[in-house]
Order: sequence, then C-alpha cells, then structure tokens
Amino acid sequence: MSKLASERKVFRDLQSLEDANSRFWAAYQERIQAVEKIALERSLSRVLAEDVFSGIDVPGFDRAAMDGFAVTAANTFGADEQHPVKLKVVAEVEAGDSAGYAASAGEALEIATGAPMPKGTDAVVMVEYTKRNESEVLVYRPVSPGENVTGAGSDIMTGELLLRKSERITPREVGLLAAIGLSQVSVFRKPRVAIFSSGNELIKPGDSLKFAKIYDINGPAVSAAVAECGGEPEFLGILPDNYSAVKDSLDSALGDADIAISSGSTSSGPGDLFYRVVNDLGEPGVIVHGLTLKPGKPALLGIVRGKPIFGLPGYPTSALMIFHMLVAPIIRKLANAPEVTPVKVSAVSPMKFFKARGRRELLPVQLITQPHGGLIAYPMQSGSGAVSSFSMADGFADLPETQEYVDEGERMEIQLFGRELTPASLVVIGSHCVGIDIAFSMLKERDREFLGRTINVGSVGGFHAVKHGEADMAGVHLQDESSGEYNLPFLSTYGLKESAVLVRGYDREQGLIVKHGNPKKVREIRDLLREDVRFINRNKGSGTRLLIDRHLTMLASSLGTDLDSVSMKIHGYGYEVKSHSAVAAAVKNDRADVGFGIRTVAEVPGLDFIKLDDEKYDFLIGEDRMGKKPVQAFVNLLGSEEFSTALRTRAPGLTTNQQSGTILSQP
Amino acid sequence: MSKLASERKVFRDLQSLEDANSRFWAAYQERIQAVEKIALERSLSRVLAEDVFSGIDVPGFDRAAMDGFAVTAANTFGADEQHPVKLKVVAEVEAGDSAGYAASAGEALEIATGAPMPKGTDAVVMVEYTKRNESEVLVYRPVSPGENVTGAGSDIMTGELLLRKSERITPREVGLLAAIGLSQVSVFRKPRVAIFSSGNELIKPGDSLKFAKIYDINGPAVSAAVAECGGEPEFLGILPDNYSAVKDSLDSALGDADIAISSGSTSSGPGDLFYRVVNDLGEPGVIVHGLTLKPGKPALLGIVRGKPIFGLPGYPTSALMIFHMLVAPIIRKLANAPEVTPVKVSAVSPMKFFKARGRRELLPVQLITQPHGGLIAYPMQSGSGAVSSFSMADGFADLPETQEYVDEGERMEIQLFGRELTPASLVVIGSHCVGIDIAFSMLKERDREFLGRTINVGSVGGFHAVKHGEADMAGVHLQDESSGEYNLPFLSTYGLKESAVLVRGYDREQGLIVKHGNPKKVREIRDLLREDVRFINRNKGSGTRLLIDRHLTMLASSLGTDLDSVSMKIHGYGYEVKSHSAVAAAVKNDRADVGFGIRTVAEVPGLDFIKLDDEKYDFLIGEDRMGKKPVQAFVNLLGSEEFSTALRTRAPGLTTNQQSGTILSQP
Repeated sequence: MSKLASERKVFRDLQSLEDANSRFWAAYQERIQAVEKIALERSLSRVLAEDVFSGIDVPGFDRAAMDGFAVTAANTFGADEQHPVKLKVVAEVEAGDSAGYAASAGEALEIATGAPMPKGTDAVVMVEYTKRNESEVLVYRPVSPGENVTGAGSDIMTGELLLRKSERITPREVGLLAAIGLSQVSVFRKPRVAIFSSGNELIKPGDSLKFAKIYDINGPAVSAAVAECGGEPEFLGILPDNYSAVKDSLDSALGDADIAISSGSTSSGPGDLFYRVVNDLGEPGVIVHGLTLKPGKPALLGIVRGKPIFGLPGYPTSALMIFHMLVAPIIRKLANAPEVTPVKVSAVSPMKFFKARGRRELLPVQLITQPHGGLIAYPMQSGSGAVSSFSMADGFADLPETQEYVDEGERMEIQLFGRELTPASLVVIGSHCVGIDIAFSMLKERDREFLGRTINVGSVGGFHAVKHGEADMAGVHLQDESSGEYNLPFLSTYGLKESAVLVRGYDREQGLIVKHGNPKKVREIRDLLREDVRFINRNKGSGTRLLIDRHLTMLASSLGTDLDSVSMKIHGYGYEVKSHSAVAAAVKNDRADVGFGIRTVAEVPGLDFIKLDDEKYDFLIGEDRMGKKPVQAFVNLLGSEEFSTALRTRAPGLTTNQQSGTILSQP
Repeated sequence: MSKLASERKVFRDLQSLEDANSRFWAAYQERIQAVEKIALERSLSRVLAEDVFSGIDVPGFDRAAMDGFAVTAANTFGADEQHPVKLKVVAEVEAGDSAGYAASAGEALEIATGAPMPKGTDAVVMVEYTKRNESEVLVYRPVSPGENVTGAGSDIMTGELLLRKSERITPREVGLLAAIGLSQVSVFRKPRVAIFSSGNELIKPGDSLKFAKIYDINGPAVSAAVAECGGEPEFLGILPDNYSAVKDSLDSALGDADIAISSGSTSSGPGDLFYRVVNDLGEPGVIVHGLTLKPGKPALLGIVRGKPIFGLPGYPTSALMIFHMLVAPIIRKLANAPEVTPVKVSAVSPMKFFKARGRRELLPVQLITQPHGGLIAYPMQSGSGAVSSFSMADGFADLPETQEYVDEGERMEIQLFGRELTPASLVVIGSHCVGIDIAFSMLKERDREFLGRTINVGSVGGFHAVKHGEADMAGVHLQDESSGEYNLPFLSTYGLKESAVLVRGYDREQGLIVKHGNPKKVREIRDLLREDVRFINRNKGSGTRLLIDRHLTMLASSLGTDLDSVSMKIHGYGYEVKSHSAVAAAVKNDRADVGFGIRTVAEVPGLDFIKLDDEKYDFLIGEDRMGKKPVQAFVNLLGSEEFSTALRTRAPGLTTNQQSGTILSQP
C-alpha cells in the first residue's frame, strides 16, 4: 500500500451531534474557571464571576427629590393659598454642596434637586407652591415629613445584592457597578483557545504565495469565531502533516491554553494523524471521531489533561458550521456565559434539490429577502472547498437524516451565522458580470443605505429567478441561435412578456484569450484546429459555449463539414470549465494556449485578447419591481455618463451604448 | 431672584425626536470618515473602508479535487471493468508538494486532494475506480479532461471583487480576506467619542464617597453604550457646574474627538449652562434643546466645528433611553456601520397605569416570560433617578402622545436595551427578602442554567401576581389582624384557595432598630412615646406597618386609650419610608433614633436590634407551576440543611423552622 493510501485508512465509529455532546460532558471534569479583576471601563460583555453586594447606601444621604425649599414639615401645617406660612430663608443648597447646613424653627433653605437635606429639615416644598421675597419665602401648601425627599439608602442599601454571578455585563451593569463606587470588577477569565491549522499546502496570509500552496483561511476565521463567542483566541500557526510536529505543538499548547482547536487540511491523512496525536497525548484522548452529519465526518472531539480538543473539517464553510453546532456552545459554557439562543429564520427553497442520503446535513444557504417580507434560501454546495460559497452563505439549514430532498417552495429553518440578517435593497440573480459590481459600488457611494446582492446562477437561472419573483432583476446575455438577437426573444420563451421589463445594459467584447504577446500567433477561430494549439472550452449550456459553437459551426460550414468533425480536431475541446475567469486562469497557467471569453477577464491578469463579437448584456426586471427606488437608481445609472466612464476605466471590454438604460420591452 | 431660581429659567422650543433627527442631518456636513489599516486578527466587527479585490487566483494552481490518480484523460478512454487501462505510477503527490511533477504518455501519479496537478495530466481518476499494484495502477473507468480537477482561479480570480466597502467584518469576512492572502485590512476608524458627566455632586467610582456626593453612573454607562454601537469612547471626567470649566473641557475635547456627549446632573441649572457653552463655542451651536418626549426634556443636540454634540438627561435610565433613540443611530452612521434594526418584542401590561399626558413617553419596563411563551411588561418609574429601576429595566415602551393610559392586558411593543432577552427560569414577584437572593445564588451554584428574577411589589402585589399567572411564586408576609395568623387566611381573601399552594418559608425577626450601642436606651414599644426619641415609620399598607400599628394598639389598650392618641405622641409617626432598608438607613444616618424592621437590615450596617416578633415569610405558588423544575428545586431547598446554614451565616434574623419547605395549603 502506498503512503497516501495508508493515510486514507480511517476506521471510525461515527456519532450523532447529540451523542457527541453527551459524551463530551460525561467525560469532561468541569473545573472552576479562573477569575480576574479588571477595570470597570474594560468590563463590557464580560461575565461576572461573583455576586455583587453594595458596600454603600445609595443615595448616601437624604436628598431633595425636587427643586424647592427644605423645611420642617410641621412648620407648614395649615398653610394654604389664603394663609401662606412665612419662613426665613437662611441659605441656598445646590447638589453636591457638602457645607452641612441646618435649619432652626421658622427657617427654610432654598434647595436644588439632588442636594443634601439640611439638618433639622424633613421635607421639600416644591418651588411651584412658594414665593420667595428676598430673605423670606411664602409657603402655600403643607408638606408631610419625608415628602419630596429621597431617603439615604432608599435606592440601594448597604449589603444589598445587586448583580448575580454569571450575568453578562452590558452598559446597564456597568452603570450599576459604578453606582456603588466600584472601579474594578471580578469577571471570569475568558477561556484561552489555542488554534492551529494543519496542512502542508497552507501558508499564512501576508506571506508570498508559492506553487502548490494556498492561504490558510481557517486559522483567522476560527480565531474570529472564537472571539465572537467569548473565548480568547491564540493562533499558534500552521502545522505540517507530521506526527511529531503536531504532537509537540499540541502538547505545548495544552500548557497554557484551556481549549485547543485544529482544523484539518483537505487530504484525509492529517485527520487520522490528529486522531493518533490526541490519543497518544493522554487519557481519555479522542472521545468522538466523526459525526453522522454532513459535513462532520472529519470532526474530532477529545479531552487531554482535562482540556477539550476539537478537530474541525478543512473546508471553511464546513469548519464554520461544525464550529457553530459543536464547539461554540462548549466554549460559551466554559466562559460561563449565559446561553445564547441561535438566531433562526424561516425561508423557502426556490428549487428542488437532493440532500445527502441517509445523513443529517447542514446545508449552507444564501438568503434573499422578498418584497412581501418572506425569505428565499438558495442552497450552496456544502461539500466543496469553495471560498466563494463560504463568503456568500448567510446561514445553514439543518436537514434531518430521514429527509431525501427539499422540494421547491418547501419551508426550511435557517440558523444564521451571525446575530442578524441585513436585507439587501437590490437583488440581482443571473449571469454575473463585473459591470454589476461597478454599478453597486457607485450606487453605494451615492446612498449609504444601498446594499446590493448578487447570486450567480447563469442567464437561464436569471430568467427563472425573475419569473418566480426571487430577484429584483437578472443580468442576462442569451443569444437567439436563429436570429442572433440577444435576450429579447427569450421573454416569450420563459413566459415573461407580460410580467417583466428588459432594459439594455452594455456591450461586452467576446473573443479569444491568449497568453501575453500571443506566442502561438493565434488570429482567428480557424487557428484552434492547429496541432500546436491547446484550447480550453466552456461548459455546455453557458451563453459563451453557445457562441463558441456558433463560430465553429460557421467554420465547419466554410470547410464543407460539420461541427462534430471540426470539434474532434480541436485539442482540449472536451476540457470544459465553468466561468470566464477559469478560462483566463487556464491560459495564464499554461493549461491551454487559447480560450474564449470576455475581454475584461483577459486584461486584469495581463493576457492578450482578440475580439470576435460584441454581445449584449442586459437587465431583466420584474415589472412589479420597477417602482423600487434602488431599481430605478440602477436603471438610471446604466444610461449615465459616469457609468460609461467607470466602465471604460475599470472594466476594459465593457462599453455602454446609445441604448444603455433604455427599456427594450415592457408589458 | 435667587441664583438657583435663575438657573431654573430655561426657555425651550421642544422638538419631536423625528424633527430633532432631521434638523441634525440638515445641519451636519458629513465628512469623509478617517480610515486606518489594521491587522486581520484585530478586524472582527470593524467596518470595511474600501472594496476588496482579489490580487491572486484561488486556487493559484490546478489541483486535485479528489484522492486518486492524476492522468491524461485521453489515456483512459475506453477503460471499463473488463478492460482496465494500465498506467505506470511514477510518483506520489501530496497536498502542498511543490516539487513540480510531470507525466509522460502512459504514466500516472498517485495524488491527494488539494495537491497540484502534475504537468501533462488533466484529470483525476478517483481511487475507488483504480487498483494499484506496486509501480502500476489499473484504471477501471475513463475520465474526461478536467474531471475532478479544480482549475486555477476557478474559485476566486485575480481582480474579482470580493467584499464591498461598509460591510461589517464577521468571521466569514476574516476568512475571505485570509483566502486572498491579506494580513491587513483597511477599515473605518471608529468615531472617537468624548464623554463627560456634569454635576458638582458627582464623584468617580473608585474614589471615596463624601457627604452630599454620589457616584457617577452615566460616565461609565454611556461609555459602554458608545463602545457597544461602534464608537471609541474616551471618558474625560466629571465637570463641575461651572461655565468656564465646561467650555474649556468641551473646547479641548473637540480637538481630537469626532463627537462629544455630556450627561446633565439632576438639577436644571447645568442643562442651561451646557446650552450656553455649546452656543458660544461656534456655529451652528445648539440645534435642538429639549424633546417633546418624556424623558427627553433635558436632551440637547448641537454641532460645533462640524462635530455633533449631545447632552443627555442626568437620570441613568433616561440617559440610556435617549441614547438608544437619538444618539446610537447617529454614531452608527458616523461609524459607517450597517443599519441595526432595534430588537422589539411584544408584551402585555399586567396593570392599568397612566402615562405622561399629552407627551410621547419612553417607559422603561421589566419583562417576564410567561409559561405559555408570552411576555408581561412591568412598568418602572421613568422619571425617577432610581438606580434600581435602571438595573431592572429590560427595555422600554414607546407610548404615543395621544395615548392617555395603558390598560391592564394591553399589548405594547418593547424595544430591548440589549440584542436579546434571556428568559428567567424562575420568577418571584412580591415582597422582597434577602432570603430569596441567597436561595437564588445556591440554586445557580447547583444548576448553571438557573436564572432567577425578582420583582418587588409587596405581599399584596405578590398575591395578585400569582393570581394572574404573572409570577411562578410570591414571597409574602401578611398577618391577619384578627387571628394573628400569617399568610394562610389571605388565600381566601384573594380567591386563591383553589389555584395556589402555600409553602412555609422561614421566620423573620421583626423588632426595633436603633443606633449602635443604643444610646437612647430604647427597650420596648413604650419608649416611642418619649420626648427625646425620634421614630421613623413605614408606609401604610405594608405588612410591617400593620405590625407596628398592632403593637401600638396593644400599648394604647394597656394605657386605656386608642391608637390615634398614642400615635399623636410619637415624634416621626408621620414620617413614612417604603422599605426595611430605608428605615435602617434613616437610623444609621441620624434622621431617627428608632425604627421598626427586620434584624437582617439592622445588622449589616452595624445597628442594634431589639426583637419583638417572629413573622412568617412564606411562598405562594401557582398550582400550575408546581411541576416546574426550578420551583421544585426552590421548595426542596427551603427545607434543606444547607439553606438553613446559609441563612444562619449570611442573613442574621432569618431562620428556617420545622415546617420550612412544607406545604401549608393546596387545592
């Protein structure tokens, strides 16, 4: 058996999430969490480590609750409008005045709210019921003892319990601690969480990228997630897939840290390696290896020296979901933080899709707010390592083992990654184009409340999304094979003539993408037939593939043959990739000599471009969305000089035309 | 006119909250917010200051998407179970291996997921469809070019827009920035917010308390609230109520800070002073002085040197509500942070009460979760400076100007102070006793999920709260005047015989509270009649007042007279305070020589106590709550040895008895 094959051999007794959790708490000997004393001003969001009793009375003295005159209540008995009582005003007392005044019989003091009651007085007559005249005051209403006086200790009494252990400190608690004069507070020390990434292919962000390496995502992302749930993250670096390196690092980390988290690389070897290390470091070692949950197979849960150790999947979206479901609740408990209920929202699936059969699945989704207030949840591939899926998922659905598929229109509960969902003001679903990004950033500059969102499902998907009301608009570039016309004919095809508006967007230059300097001297489509030229194709069904095949059909016709015969001769015709970017990348990285795509993607990485077509990239808009302000703003922008300039400078190959921003069809 | 009276003279043109906001944005010249570059690991929760484009392809090379064998797809055409293709294995490639392998015709390389594709190969055959035999591999299925290969740049392409300006950075964004190799990120600098408290009576927490002074609550609490909404608070201290001191401090603060916030003291003078200072510092100066909103009268909004200045009310609850409604949204905008929707919950009022007439009112409430899931909102006095109301309010109702009162059972929308409400597991509403605090902290030690909550409304209020199902239980100590029996007779009085359970709590020693050493040599109730003894009474309707009057009635009877005649002779009989604590505080602070109350409050501040009665403090429990685990735990605790010991050591004057924890009455 090869070394690679032997590393793959992992025997696991997969556990459910619930069983994993029970096993953990059964094996974990909870120890008293360390406490630290910190300054009040740094205490926000921390968790109180002890009950807080007041050491003082609040207020600490009897004080006036109103502006007016401090009197002896008995002196005012019998006073009324006709028979005011006349008292001698002997002083004025302001809040904070510590002079220690006193009144004798027949005397009063003018007093401000909050000022200490002078000796010999026991009530305050509100200023409204008095008339001061030089050194005398007329009192028109009697008061009873204690009236308009806040007694010492009446708010908080010495010895009173004010705050309880394990409360989280918010601005209110800060105020309360201040009220009793505390400038320091005992809080639970945050659990120290040592974080590793493992994989020979990983390098640290900031370092320069080398062949065969990728930047480590999980290290920084898991560190941030740890901080978010109340832990103190310490990232200890990237470990090679090497037993002794992993063992040594984990061993030393367990000295200082309360918890250790490692996330695996994409190969299966390291998962097994981490398993061996955790088991070898001490009892009980590994408690759970693998969850009966997609994507939890590579997850690991262990305890060594009484400290929890977690192994997370290597794919970032998977790592984050397992972190949310398994790790975060445990960190919160160890931080003595109050329970946090995960925020869940209800959303509807826009399509039917099949889930992992016979396994509970956490499915990342992207959420779109509907105008009537509901939510649509677009599923994303959870099993893929794609960073783009990681960046676009708002949360995940938790689909039970017994479920086979999610139906179109089916309602799902979505657990959010964050604490809240910010609804987009403009949703564009369809074929993606950098022109939309540019428009969004211009609209954002003009209106800070603008929040645009794109979901890339291709032009056909865009027609469907507008039809079902999921999108405000779709970016589309479908060419009708027979007429050669763009987009307009498809309104009928998709039954949208009566419910959608088509607005002209801009021209996109399509053509051949070749290496810088065009070393193979490719000039035209015919060059694809050359023995020394390697082509990279687009996926079937994409608008660009249709264009490629149109060109090849014309070529075939001029050669007196058919598309099949021509394509057989092209090296790489069978090698399909799914985006303009992937075509450019293949050429740039010498996987091919030539591809077909838009100029924009060729210019950024410094490739050469041979223009063959101008295609129309237009916007399909639900008629009911035309009244939306952000939609209007977008359409207006399309026809503006600023947008034209922005495309020219920022997106070579995209050009507005006379029709940009005009309506091509409406019901 | 006296100095105090002249300070009171404030002429204002009160504005609604909405108008205040409009006036602000009309006058504020929004300037470009400063940007700073910070390390990725410190970027959580910050706001992106620029669009982020990828400078690299992700992945940067073609890589294997599966474990298996890297091959030239064309070599595998025609392979099936019967006719495997045999290839020579020339190397093994692991993830991260940068050696740069290549394959010639008829060759394959064993490859791990994530490893770079060797030159000359264009597909991966999954390991499941192969059989390796030393230096050869049999391939049982054909692959097409690109199969199981993730192309360079297929995930993220050089030049692609990844994140947009003004997005808040969560762990996902951290991961995404890491993915493209960034170790630093440009974020908006947090707005620097200078915070002052003003009032001659204020001193800083941590300093020693002096007569006439109280600790500053708003300084620390507002600082924390500023941090919570994305500002960088800098507390610059407590200002005296002095024009030039306030002017100089504000003037110098405006040099560095982006925003200044002052909160007023309880007297009306400083509000006017702050108004003059803001107007004198520059144009436009004060924009709004006073809101048509209770408690917004003292609020101030100004702009000086293009910087917003806020004046908040002095009462902490008021300051926090005005901060939430007026200041926080502006700070968030200046921080370029995404909009945050305030969290609102729906709750029912347990009683009828009148609101400020003809004025919109923000009414702080305490929220109680009902077993069936609904919420009850107990109103708190918003106009009072009570710290206790500050500490107990969960949020506030926004009651419109036109509303006159809130009816019992009326539904209100409550805006939370925080982002979420943690429901209590046990709610006790009634007469407060430190014995409950002790029980709660013991229950919390046993079960970290336990969260007890008390609302203090007196014994009678407790009977009502249990009757209406608002409370799980009530602490009660009502004595029947005729029989002298505690609590039990009142089950019938309040119609609870068929729906509530009465559980014996513990004995509380009631008696006379006198100064340390008993300088006036008070021995018995009769001493209250002495000329040289000043008494402090309890409020009518309290259980303790009933007890006092019973003692005085007996005294009167022994003297052959009646209660009225006796009480006329007692100095201070008319001076009523509302709690045991207030009685103890009055004696401690020499406002009286003697009061009547429980031993517990006498001992903590070092007063002397002369025991006269043992009263029964019991627990009334809704029968439908008896099944709740925390209720059971509480009842069990009452009869336990540990609780008995805890009372003995921590609460002098509270004593369990043989019956503690037993049921006295049940339906």
